[in-house]
Amino acid sequence: MPLTDTQRADIEALRAAAAPTRRPTVPALEDMLFTAIPLLDHGFIRVVDYMGDDGAIVQAARVSYGRGTRRVSEDAGLIRYLMRHRHSTPFEMCEIKFHVKLPIFVARQWIRHRTANVNEYSARYSVLDREFYIPAPAQLAAQSDINRQGRGTVLQGAEAAEVLALLRADAATCYDHYAHMLNEDAEGAPADPARQGLARELARMNLTLNAYTQWYWKTDLHNLLHFCSLRADTHAQYEIRVYADAILEIVRAWVPAAHAAFLDYRLGAATFSAGMLSVLKRMLAGEAVAQDGSGISKREWSEMMGLLGKQ
Amino acid sequence: MPLTDTQRADIEALRAAAAPTRRPTVPALEDMLFTAIPLLDHGFIRVVDYMGDDGAIVQAARVSYGRGTRRVSEDAGLIRYLMRHRHSTPFEMCEIKFHVKLPIFVARQWIRHRTANVNEYSARYSVLDREFYIPAPAQLAAQSDINRQGRGTVLQGAEAAEVLALLRADAATCYDHYAHMLNEDAEGAPADPARQGLARELARMNLTLNAYTQWYWKTDLHNLLHFCSLRADTHAQYEIRVYADAILEIVRAWVPAAHAAFLDYRLGAATFSAGMLSVLKRMLAGEAVAQDGSGISKREWSEMMGLLGKQ
Amino acid sequence: MPLTDTQRADIEALRAAAAPTRRPTVPALEDMLFTAIPLLDHGFIRVVDYMGDDGAIVQAARVSYGRGTRRVSEDAGLIRYLMRHRHSTPFEMCEIKFHVKLPIFVARQWIRHRTANVNEYSARYSVLDREFYIPAPAQLAAQSDINRQGRGTVLQGAEAAEVLALLRADAATCYDHYAHMLNEDAEGAPADPARQGLARELARMNLTLNAYTQWYWKTDLHNLLHFCSLRADTHAQYEIRVYADAILEIVRAWVPAAHAAFLDYRLGAATFSAGMLSVLKRMLAGEAVAQDGSGISKREWSEMMGLLGKQ
Amino acid sequence: MPLTDTQRADIEALRAAAAPTRRPTVPALEDMLFTAIPLLDHGFIRVVDYMGDDGAIVQAARVSYGRGTRRVSEDAGLIRYLMRHRHSTPFEMCEIKFHVKLPIFVARQWIRHRTANVNEYSARYSVLDREFYIPAPAQLAAQSDINRQGRGTVLQGAEAAEVLALLRADAATCYDHYAHMLNEDAEGAPADPARQGLARELARMNLTLNAYTQWYWKTDLHNLLHFCSLRADTHAQYEIRVYADAILEIVRAWVPAAHAAFLDYRLGAATFSAGMLSVLKRMLAGEAVAQDGSGISKREWSEMMGLLGKQ
Repeated sequence: MPLTDTQRADIEALRAAAAPTRRPTVPALEDMLFTAIPLLDHGFIRVVDYMGDDGAIVQAARVSYGRGTRRVSEDAGLIRYLMRHRHSTPFEMCEIKFHVKLPIFVARQWIRHRTANVNEYSARYSVLDREFYIPAPAQLAAQSDINRQGRGTVLQGAEAAEVLALLRADAATCYDHYAHMLNEDAEGAPADPARQGLARELARMNLTLNAYTQWYWKTDLHNLLHFCSLRADTHAQYEIRVYADAILEIVRAWVPAAHAAFLDYRLGAATFSAGMLSVLKRMLAGEAVAQDGSGISKREWSEMMGLLGKQ
Repeated sequence: MPLTDTQRADIEALRAAAAPTRRPTVPALEDMLFTAIPLLDHGFIRVVDYMGDDGAIVQAARVSYGRGTRRVSEDAGLIRYLMRHRHSTPFEMCEIKFHVKLPIFVARQWIRHRTANVNEYSARYSVLDREFYIPAPAQLAAQSDINRQGRGTVLQGAEAAEVLALLRADAATCYDHYAHMLNEDAEGAPADPARQGLARELARMNLTLNAYTQWYWKTDLHNLLHFCSLRADTHAQYEIRVYADAILEIVRAWVPAAHAAFLDYRLGAATFSAGMLSVLKRMLAGEAVAQDGSGISKREWSEMMGLLGKQ
Repeated sequence: MPLTDTQRADIEALRAAAAPTRRPTVPALEDMLFTAIPLLDHGFIRVVDYMGDDGAIVQAARVSYGRGTRRVSEDAGLIRYLMRHRHSTPFEMCEIKFHVKLPIFVARQWIRHRTANVNEYSARYSVLDREFYIPAPAQLAAQSDINRQGRGTVLQGAEAAEVLALLRADAATCYDHYAHMLNEDAEGAPADPARQGLARELARMNLTLNAYTQWYWKTDLHNLLHFCSLRADTHAQYEIRVYADAILEIVRAWVPAAHAAFLDYRLGAATFSAGMLSVLKRMLAGEAVAQDGSGISKREWSEMMGLLGKQ
Repeated sequence: MPLTDTQRADIEALRAAAAPTRRPTVPALEDMLFTAIPLLDHGFIRVVDYMGDDGAIVQAARVSYGRGTRRVSEDAGLIRYLMRHRHSTPFEMCEIKFHVKLPIFVARQWIRHRTANVNEYSARYSVLDREFYIPAPAQLAAQSDINRQGRGTVLQGAEAAEVLALLRADAATCYDHYAHMLNEDAEGAPADPARQGLARELARMNLTLNAYTQWYWKTDLHNLLHFCSLRADTHAQYEIRVYADAILEIVRAWVPAAHAAFLDYRLGAATFSAGMLSVLKRMLAGEAVAQDGSGISKREWSEMMGLLGKQ
C-alpha cells in the first residue's frame, strides 16, 4: 500500500526542517533520516532519530568532560580495543530509533531481542492494511535435507506456481473476510448497516502470518550489533536477514569506526573451542591431523574445516 | 489435539517421581505440578517448576542466614509492608516456570513482557499441530462504541453464525494448505514424491493468527504480578485474561501471603491523581463538588466516580 | 577539585559548536547542554545528549509517519492519558544521557536502577580525585526514632562538631594513605623511587564511601521518571534526592507535557488499598469511621490519614 | 565475625529439613545447600536455592511435555550444540540463588551485571559488622607496568608491611568512628546518653571500601556463565575471581553437561578476528608469516601468538 499524500507530506516536512543543535551530529546519517529503505515486497526500515556517534563511544569509555576524542586514529584504536575485549558498555551509549514495516512472522523473531523499546501498530485499536508478504520466486526454497531449520534448493515449475498461488489466495481471502467481519467503511461507520461488525481485537485473528505490521523500535548500539551478529548471519532466515543487512549499512554511515571493528571482531571472526584450538596447534606444528584422532566430533570437525575455508 | 500416549506417560512419570529436597517446598503447588489447566478451546497452562515461597520473600528482605521467618503473622505483615511501599526486589527472589499453549495473537501480546525467559516451539524446525482458537459464541463481541480498543455487545443470529463459519473455514483452509505445501508424511518423508515440499520456515506464513503455539515461560514473582495487574484487568483482552486469571489462582496456592497483599494493594487498589485527591479532600470536608468546578476533566471525573463506585 | 583548564576548554568547545540536524530539538534543553549543575559540596549533573521530545511520545504512540502531533492541547491530552493508564512504552522512546559526579555511597543506591547504561570512572585504571562529601551542618541528622531507615532531628553543638571533624579527618587520612600507597607523581612515575607502589585496583579499597566518583548514565524517559518517583520522594535519602530533584527540573525543560502529567499522576498522586477504598466510600457516604472499626491496621490508617492531609 | 549461635542453628535447621518434591533435584547440589564456602578473609558464598538441572535445558529446548531427555549422551550432545551456536534461551531456564558476603569494592564490580535479582543488607537500616578485607601478603601486588588495569610483582619487605599496616589501621579507625558516631549499644539504645547518634544512612559514609557487605543474589544459568566468563578470566581482579571460581565449581556440581560445554566453548575457547583468521589460513598453507606483513597490528599479533601458545 503506497503512502497516502498526508504521510508523504508529513515525511517531507520532517526532512525539510532543520534546527541547530549542540549534540553530536552525523551528516551521513542525517542524509538518510526519515527516508524509507524498501525491503521485501511491502516492507521498509527508516531511521527516525539517533543519539551519539563514534566519538560518544570514546567519550564514555574515558568518562571525559569534553568529547574525549583525540586523533581519529587513536579513537579508532580505542574502539577496536573495546570491541576486541568485549567492553560493551561504551557501545551502549549510542542509541537509534527505527520505524519498520515487516511481516508478522518476521516480527515474531525480531521481538525476541528483549533489550529494546517497541511501540507496535495496534490491531486492537486500528485496522491493518491489505498487504502481505509473498516471496519472490528465487526465495521459494524447499526444506533443507541437512539442516532441520534451513532452506534447500529452490522450488521449480508447477510446485512453485502452486505454492505462490496458495499463499496469495489464502492471504487475500483471510484479509477480505477480516474486513468483512469488521464491517467498517473508510470512516469507521458500518459498511452494512444490518451488521454490527466484529471487534477489531477478535477479527485480527483471521489474518495470516505474512500480513504486514509496523513498529517503532529503539535500541542501543551494543544490542543493535548483537541483533546484527545473529540476524545478518547466514543461518538467519532470509526474510529477517534483509532487515539486518540494511541496518548494517545504516550502522556503517552512523559509526564507521565501530562498524569496521564489528566486521573484523564479530561478523568476520571465528571462535575455536578448546578442542579445536588443540587441533589447530598440532596442525601449526606440522602434524597432519585427521578427524579420526583429532579428539573432536565429526560435526565439530566439519565446522572447523568450514571456519578454515577447507570445505 | 489430545495428548499422545507418550506425552501422557511422560507427564505421569514426572508426577509420580518424588525426591527429597532441602529447598523450600509448597505442598499446595506440588499438587498442581505438571497438571495442565485447560484454557480456551485448545490451550492450557501448567506449572513445570518453581523456586521459593512466602518465606523466601521475607528471607531476602532480611538478608538472613536461615529462613528469616518469625511468626506467620509477622511475616505476612512484612510482606504487606513491602507490597504497599513498592519494595519490589524481595518478590523477585521467587521464580516460576510454566508450559503454556496459546493462540499466536495472544502470544504476541504476552511476549511484550520483556523481563522473562522464553523458549517457544519452533515452526522453523517442527510442524505445528492442526489447532486454532475459535471463540465461544458468548465471546463473539462487536466493537465497543465507547472504547476504541474494547468489545461491545455480543453478536447474535446470522452475523454470529457467519463469523464463526468464516473463522473456522479460513483457519482450516490455511492449515490444510500449509500441510500440503510442506508435503510431509508422519515420518517427515515426502507425502507426494513428485514434490519437494516448501521449507517449514516459509510455509508457516500461511497460518492464521488463531493457530496455537506453545512455550516454556519463566519469570519472577514481581514480574508475574505485574503481568497479572495488566492482564487480569478488565481492560485486558478476554483471551489473555483467562491465562492471567489462572496464573493468579496458581499464585494463591504458591505464595498465599503475597497473593493477599497483591489483591489489597494492587488489583483492588485505586490511584487518585493530584487533581482527584484535591477533589476528594473537598468532598470529605463536606463540600458538594460537581465536575464543573472540580478542576479535573470530564473523563477523569468519570474515572474518579468509577473508582468511588458512584457510577 | 575545580575543573582543569583543559576540561573547561573542552566543555566550552562543546557548547560553542552547533550543527544543523533534522532530529527533534528542544531549545530549552539545548540551553542546558553540557552545563554542570552543582550538587552537594563537590558533585554535579550535566546533560550530555538527548533523543526525542514530547512529540516523540505522541509519534510512537500513534506509530505515525510524521511527527504524529496535532494540536498542542490534543498531544498533551494523549500524554496525560498514556501516563494515567500506565502505557509506558511511548515514554521509553525518549532517551537522555547524563554525566554525574556523586559520592560512592550515593552511587551504590543509584546503580540499583538496572534499566540504564553506565560507564563509571575506573579506579582500577585511573586515580580518583581528592574529594569527599562532608554534609552541611543542616544535614547532620540523628537516627529517626520512628523510622528505622530515616533521619530525625539535626545534631547540635559538640556532637555535630565532633561528627564533622571525624568525617573530614578520616576521609583525608584514608585518601592520603591511598595516594601514598599508589606512590605516583603527577605523571604516573614513582613519587618515591624506593617503593614500587600498590596496584590501583587494590589501593582504592582504602577510600571511604564518601569519596566522589563519576559516570556517564543513560536511560529512557520511562525509567528516568521511575527513578524520580522513588528518589525524589520524601522517604529517599537526602543525598540522592538532590540529584533526583535536579533531574526533575531537567525533565521539565525537556518534555514539559510529560513532566506535568508525571506530577499529577505519579508524584502528587496517592494509591488507596482495597481496604482504604472501602473506608473512603463509607466516609463519603457520611459515616464517621474510626480506625477501630475501619478494618485496616493502625499503620495503614495513619498512612491513609496522611494521604488525606488529616495529620 | 563468626556466625552467632542463632545463625548457626538457623542454617542447621535448613540443612536438616528435607521435604519430598516433584521438581528436578540434583543430589550433588543438595549436598552443598546452605553450606558457606569461605572466600577471602571474611567472605563466603552459599547456595540458598536452585531451579532446574541439565535436563531442564533439554526440556526447554525441545518444548517437551515430559523431561525431554533421552539418553544421557544425546542430551549432552544437544547441550554442546546449544552452547556452540549461542542458543542462550534454554540455559536461562535454570535459576540459582546465592547468599554472598563480599567486600564493598568487589560488590561494586559485581553489581554491574544487571540481569540478576539482588537484595543487599541495608546500612540505612542496620549496622554493618566490624569486618574488612585485608589482602594476604601474596596478593599485595604492585601496579602492572604493561597493563594499566592490572597487577605486577608482589610487594616485599618494608613496603608490603607498611601497606598492610595502613590498610588495617585506616579500616579499623574508620569503623570505630562509624560506631562512635552511631552511638548505639547492642540493643540499639544510646551508648552515651549525652549524644543523639548520627543517622545510620549518614554514618556509613565513613566506612572504607574494603568493609564487608552481604546480599542475596539470584540469576539464571546463562547470565551466571556470562558472569563467570568475565570474572573467572585471568584479566579479572583477583578479589572477584575467587568468587567466580567458586561459582564455577558449584555449576559443575549442578549442571555437569552445561559446565563441560562451557569450558570447551567459552572459557577454553579463543576467538580470531577476520584479520587473524586470514593469517591463520596462510600459516596452515605453510607460509611463514611475520607480524610485519601479517596485516594485523603488533598488539593483535601478540594476542594471537598468545592464543596459539607461541609466547
